[in-house]
Amino acid sequence: MATKLTEAAIAKNLAGLADWELRGNEIAREYRFSSFNAAMVFVNRVADLAESMDHHPDILVQFNKVTLTLSTHSAGGLTDLDFELAKKLDA
Amino acid sequence: MATKLTEAAIAKNLAGLADWELRGNEIAREYRFSSFNAAMVFVNRVADLAESMDHHPDILVQFNKVTLTLSTHSAGGLTDLDFELAKKLDA
Repeated sequence: MATKLTEAAIAKNLAGLADWELRGNEIAREYRFSSFNAAMVFVNRVADLAESMDHHPDILVQFNKVTLTLSTHSAGGLTDLDFELAKKLDA
Repeated sequence: MATKLTEAAIAKNLAGLADWELRGNEIAREYRFSSFNAAMVFVNRVADLAESMDHHPDILVQFNKVTLTLSTHSAGGLTDLDFELAKKLDA
C-alpha cells in the first residue's frame, strides 16, 4: 500500500520531471500530437502501461491534446506510485 | 459549415437524448463500465466514430468512467453535428 508523500518529497520528485506540474493533490502533464489519431495511439499505450502497473491516470483527450493527471485516491494524495508512473510515461 | 443552434433548438434536441446534459455551450454524458479495459474499448469505438464524422468529442477517462463532451468550436456553440454524433453514440 503506497503512502502519501510529504510536500518535501513531492518537490524533490517533481524536480526530476520537468514537464509535470503540481495541481493541488495531483500532478498533470499535457502532450500535443500531430493529429487525433496520433493522440489515440498514445492514449492506448498509456492505457497498457496503466494496466500493467494497476495504476490509472485520468486521461483527457481534446482532439490532438492529451492531459494526464495522476494521484493515488486510496492514499488521498501523491505517492511513489504516481511518480513511478510519471517517469515511465516520460520514458 | 454547421451553424450554432438556438436555445430552443438545443432544448428540442436534448429532449430526445435522456442521458445527455447541457453544460454551458456543451453537452455531456457520463458512461460507467465494469473495468478500465471495458472503458478503453468504448473510448476506441468513440474515436473511430469521431474520425468517421470528422467531429471529435472531448473524452475524459477516469478508471471505469468515461465522460464525453460535445460542442462545435468553429461555430462557438452547439450545432446539428453535435446532436448527430450524440445520437450515434447512444445507438
